[in-house]
Amino acid sequence: MNRQELVSLIKQKNSYLCVGLDTDIKKIPSFLLKEKDPVFEFNKRIIDATHKYAVAYKPNIAFYEAFGARGWESLEKTLEYIPKDIFTIADAKRGDIGNTSGLYARAFFENMNFHSITVAPYMGEDSVKPFLEFKNKWAIILALTSNEGSKDFQVLKTGEDKEELFIKVLKAAAGWGTDSNIMFVVGATKAEMFATIRKYVPNHFLLVPGVGAQGGDLAEVSKYGMNKDCGLLVNSSRGIIYASSGDSFAQDAAKEAAKIQIEMQGYLDKYL
Amino acid sequence: MNRQELVSLIKQKNSYLCVGLDTDIKKIPSFLLKEKDPVFEFNKRIIDATHKYAVAYKPNIAFYEAFGARGWESLEKTLEYIPKDIFTIADAKRGDIGNTSGLYARAFFENMNFHSITVAPYMGEDSVKPFLEFKNKWAIILALTSNEGSKDFQVLKTGEDKEELFIKVLKAAAGWGTDSNIMFVVGATKAEMFATIRKYVPNHFLLVPGVGAQGGDLAEVSKYGMNKDCGLLVNSSRGIIYASSGDSFAQDAAKEAAKIQIEMQGYLDKYL
Repeated sequence: MNRQELVSLIKQKNSYLCVGLDTDIKKIPSFLLKEKDPVFEFNKRIIDATHKYAVAYKPNIAFYEAFGARGWESLEKTLEYIPKDIFTIADAKRGDIGNTSGLYARAFFENMNFHSITVAPYMGEDSVKPFLEFKNKWAIILALTSNEGSKDFQVLKTGEDKEELFIKVLKAAAGWGTDSNIMFVVGATKAEMFATIRKYVPNHFLLVPGVGAQGGDLAEVSKYGMNKDCGLLVNSSRGIIYASSGDSFAQDAAKEAAKIQIEMQGYLDKYL
Repeated sequence: MNRQELVSLIKQKNSYLCVGLDTDIKKIPSFLLKEKDPVFEFNKRIIDATHKYAVAYKPNIAFYEAFGARGWESLEKTLEYIPKDIFTIADAKRGDIGNTSGLYARAFFENMNFHSITVAPYMGEDSVKPFLEFKNKWAIILALTSNEGSKDFQVLKTGEDKEELFIKVLKAAAGWGTDSNIMFVVGATKAEMFATIRKYVPNHFLLVPGVGAQGGDLAEVSKYGMNKDCGLLVNSSRGIIYASSGDSFAQDAAKEAAKIQIEMQGYLDKYL
């Protein structure tokens, strides 16, 4: 999916909601366990219920990998099932030397046809470049994450100018590609940082995890993070997919997604 | 496998060779392609031929993931086939928020029974800790890698004391666990750095990729990197597994592995 298509999708749906498919077999309604592939069945019903409100789905690859070959089958089927006009993110945090990153790119962009993948920046440019060689595909590079450990290295002052490491990552990585094939992960627990971040990457899309269970605030993120093309994909995982655990889990997920979408519509009207 | 077992294994085999199973279906001998699982067949013969000389095997997970569910099956069978007294490394470069890293740990430590996994440090302590909660399992944390992109962030001067980022990673991460559950990746293209690195982590094991195809020098690495327990696992992938591509590929792989093992025996005699 190219940038223009993504921007059109956001405007058409009045939403920049990404639904995180962190599907844990221990948390899904028990009546699904009799299905042949409970994880896929759960995802299918969540997608059916929420796709009106979402512009992106983000399977967290660890949840599938934890089940080995069987988990990969659930993942492949899930990706196949997501409507083709919705943006897909493999939340995989990959990154290795060039030829290895190239294989990860093939796994997620060719074999599974994801539109994008999250990538860790520690190994530098040649570990990210292979993800940029696919047309209309995106690398979403970790800049500032929402976990406690983000304070260990990401905010260290670096170099002569004492910029924080995540700023160095933003500046360097922005030069490895364009705002049409690179996005950045920016944790929502630091809404005040969005204004700073926008100085360095005014046009890039930002993937914002952490609204909901991780404690971010959608109003703040939207106020400080939005650009003229919206430029945000805000993720909610547990708050939507585990809204309830009974027979009505999918309807309750839809209600949560709709609630966020309406809030987002307000911010789009206000800031765009 | 605990530290004492690993050290005994090294002394018993007079080797600290890790064989990297970067098995690429495009590079394996064509006569294997008629097998039901050519990747596993290749690995099986490489393991049969080289296990006398190696103390560790390191499947590069990207090579398996590139084939989806089928690739995972090849990986699972390969791990099952590796003799139980040999150390195993999932070269996966994973790392995510706590609950997600926990699932990666489960995937590689429980479902597949790997002894260790390579981990990216960018997301900090809580992204690594879940890998340290398994008895006799190891997290191998990226410090200084052997690729060109290692210059982008890993050697940036950070903080008041202007230490390079990879030193900050070594110092911080050494405190997250012990020298019995944490190792570090240190690229072999920078042998002169080993003396520096040993000041900060005198006792830890270092996993050294890059001897062979990536251009490292075993003599230098051994001279500057070895500690009283050896403290090194030196990897060779392509130089061994693709030593030749004909009928005798496994014998030729064995010859290459034996050559390295004999060289290593010399360094163990000299420095230990």
